[in-house]
Amino acid sequence: MINPYDDTYFMKRAFQEAEAAYKKGEIPIGAVIVINNQIIARTHNLTETLNDVTAHAEMQAITAAANYLGGKYLIDCTLYVTIEPCQMCAGALAWSQISKIVYGARDEQRGCIAMETKLHPKTKMIGGVMAEEASQLLKRFFIEKRNLN
Amino acid sequence: MINPYDDTYFMKRAFQEAEAAYKKGEIPIGAVIVINNQIIARTHNLTETLNDVTAHAEMQAITAAANYLGGKYLIDCTLYVTIEPCQMCAGALAWSQISKIVYGARDEQRGCIAMETKLHPKTKMIGGVMAEEASQLLKRFFIEKRNLN
Repeated sequence: MINPYDDTYFMKRAFQEAEAAYKKGEIPIGAVIVINNQIIARTHNLTETLNDVTAHAEMQAITAAANYLGGKYLIDCTLYVTIEPCQMCAGALAWSQISKIVYGARDEQRGCIAMETKLHPKTKMIGGVMAEEASQLLKRFFIEKRNLN
Repeated sequence: MINPYDDTYFMKRAFQEAEAAYKKGEIPIGAVIVINNQIIARTHNLTETLNDVTAHAEMQAITAAANYLGGKYLIDCTLYVTIEPCQMCAGALAWSQISKIVYGARDEQRGCIAMETKLHPKTKMIGGVMAEEASQLLKRFFIEKRNLN
């Protein structure tokens, strides 16, 4: 049987969230959390709207997924996020014991790989799913922002 | 003039928050954020109550302080926290550009120093203020928890 619910499918859903952020003038990063092929959280960056540096897509997704599950650990869950998590978000993901992280584009400067943030030993992380689209959306946002100022 | 509002004064206020967490059965860590000798946020760990790994005292304090200030950057603010921040909280503090972090006791295993989390270059961090009290409260919590199970 062909499974339509692959990493690209869920990353597209995360990308829709990134586009929603973009339309609000937020740095366009989106995330979804999935368990058993079911989306239980979908969020996008809201740092400007909420005036809050902690309001990254991943942080909100962790809170929303835990709320849905009624428990704070995200075992058997997968996070899809359009850009590699920062050290704050990777630190939160470490506490959550999430099983898998799938990101789109690398963040060479501030991503958790460059920052050497420690994930939970049971967490697997892969990247590069829809990386070009995620990266292009982010670049477009910053170019437009620069031209406005 | 003698200034009564020294690091020990504010750490005592953070310690009161840690005691409030302790009474709720939460890992007893408390925090306050101060600007111009005025407390603008006081919080304690609520991970159990909220079923949320992101509900550390520091994360809530950052959100509350930004809400008070009406802006997301915590320049000229000092965070007092009874235990050294973890990589999630240190990552959030990095985004906030907070001027100063004062912690009580070190967290040798999971603290941001061992984890090598990168703070903002303008952030100063000092530790050891009421370290013994903070450490003792934490130890008492875990001993009691172990005895209950």
